[in-house]
Amino acid sequence: MKYAIGVDLGGTSIKIGLVSEDGKIVKKIFVDTEASGGPRKVICNIKNGVHQLLSEINLPIQGIGIGCPGVVNPQKGIVENPPNFYNWKKVNVGRPLSMEFEKDVFVENDANAAAIGELIFGNGKKYHSFVMVTLGTGVGGGIIIKRKLYHGDFSAAGEIGHITIDHNGPKCNCGSFGCIEAYAGSNYLRKRVWDGLKQHPRSLINKLIEKNYDHLTPRKIKEAADKGDKFAISIIEDLGVKLGAAFASVSNLIDVSTYIVGGGVAGFGKPLFNSIQKTFSSRVLKSLQPRVKVVAAQLKNEAGIKGASALVFNET
Amino acid sequence: MKYAIGVDLGGTSIKIGLVSEDGKIVKKIFVDTEASGGPRKVICNIKNGVHQLLSEINLPIQGIGIGCPGVVNPQKGIVENPPNFYNWKKVNVGRPLSMEFEKDVFVENDANAAAIGELIFGNGKKYHSFVMVTLGTGVGGGIIIKRKLYHGDFSAAGEIGHITIDHNGPKCNCGSFGCIEAYAGSNYLRKRVWDGLKQHPRSLINKLIEKNYDHLTPRKIKEAADKGDKFAISIIEDLGVKLGAAFASVSNLIDVSTYIVGGGVAGFGKPLFNSIQKTFSSRVLKSLQPRVKVVAAQLKNEAGIKGASALVFNET
Repeated sequence: MKYAIGVDLGGTSIKIGLVSEDGKIVKKIFVDTEASGGPRKVICNIKNGVHQLLSEINLPIQGIGIGCPGVVNPQKGIVENPPNFYNWKKVNVGRPLSMEFEKDVFVENDANAAAIGELIFGNGKKYHSFVMVTLGTGVGGGIIIKRKLYHGDFSAAGEIGHITIDHNGPKCNCGSFGCIEAYAGSNYLRKRVWDGLKQHPRSLINKLIEKNYDHLTPRKIKEAADKGDKFAISIIEDLGVKLGAAFASVSNLIDVSTYIVGGGVAGFGKPLFNSIQKTFSSRVLKSLQPRVKVVAAQLKNEAGIKGASALVFNET
Repeated sequence: MKYAIGVDLGGTSIKIGLVSEDGKIVKKIFVDTEASGGPRKVICNIKNGVHQLLSEINLPIQGIGIGCPGVVNPQKGIVENPPNFYNWKKVNVGRPLSMEFEKDVFVENDANAAAIGELIFGNGKKYHSFVMVTLGTGVGGGIIIKRKLYHGDFSAAGEIGHITIDHNGPKCNCGSFGCIEAYAGSNYLRKRVWDGLKQHPRSLINKLIEKNYDHLTPRKIKEAADKGDKFAISIIEDLGVKLGAAFASVSNLIDVSTYIVGGGVAGFGKPLFNSIQKTFSSRVLKSLQPRVKVVAAQLKNEAGIKGASALVFNET
């Protein structure tokens, strides 16, 4: 059995796991990122975390994979402008780690790492080409073409969250308008539901969250929908319509028809997936229609660690 | 000097040219497609046309390139469901021609051939990666990544005309809504201007077309705009806003930031290109902004023949 280290570098915590080639996490630890300490501090924390993990589990590893926010140059291991990281422009994360551990280090954008995770360990095993979509605070994407990541000109490809579905739509944090993230990103979604509740005071959601915005989560919306709350159901279906429209645009452009959808908001489950599939099929070009497929991601909470470790197994 | 035959297969006529490797058309002829006669008749007409051309110009050729509508399998030379062709499902166009002339035959979708034409002979020579956009009756597209055509899973990629910019927008012929083609396709555009003229009876366009819909062409709109007609200018600028929004979506997804724009509607020239560039820059993700570039296609009326011949020079 082969093993690899997967590092899921987040703005708050670094999740590090030792993963076997069949996709099981043997052991994992979390350390604080201390992003405010600057790049050297962050890299030092990764090193210490990996050392700690390796000291606890004495197994030979093939390499280290790192998934992180921002634009990544995977050839050079350079991470550029990750949001919420202090004093960080272009930083080589790969080299100091490969020198420290004398192992191959693979660095990728976190959405791309999630795509490789599904490709190697998850529902992507069955597909030649697919688009991985992660519905979380943001909407991330990774494009797999013929079992390889599609990087584009400068490794910034896959930003499906910033496909516009209404060029006069609501403002997105990126500066544009009507991006799919401005509808499906969890904070935008919560805000929209909160505003909508004024028109639907008798919605079950109001009861479940005790009229407290902080309690308004995708999970509560799902709970209300499962109990038949019409407003909650309409929110989920409408989200599917919007995602379906975006997916149709993407497929018409790149001729990839399978979507693997994960992240917290994908927890809406069947009503969301049915709505996406219906809109997607009805909008995509006729020649692509028979191939349209939308499936749930298989890797759930541990997608970050597993995806990062999959970067190693994908290359070795 | 090397030479190739370029065949631009249209629904009404077949344009055939003998082209030199420096992109000059030595001789060209047009023959009727007779698409209503079915695939065998069409292929027979191509053969006869090529024979006629070769009998008039006795030069050795490297091969034959064919650009045609529909979904094309370039490996097999198969053309699938070209619109306006009778009794045509999946037809191998490449094989009968390579057997007849004992030459290599390269078949591509016409929008992809236009992209290769710009790559080999036109403004694409300068760019590693770009998206070719043809603004005609329809809006076609071809994606060049690292100097190669991007085909997608089943060679249907590049349909930039069917990127939605408003999922509740006007109905597009493809069955979807708010596709960029439903704004920029010349017939949609003419119809929109015609409707708009009711609110702008004093627009110069009305005078130029003598209130006759049949005279309403992109050229007349440009003529009015050049003379300072505000309604005509607003139409062109608005079109640029819409195209810019679509290009931003495309770039965010595939990380290619150069667009080469051709076709009749691109004849609007500078006011259109400036408007596209402005909107595109303002909407694309910050990391891509410095690389945004929109340029006019270099191959004009003969783009079809030259693009088709470029398929040969690109491979040999």
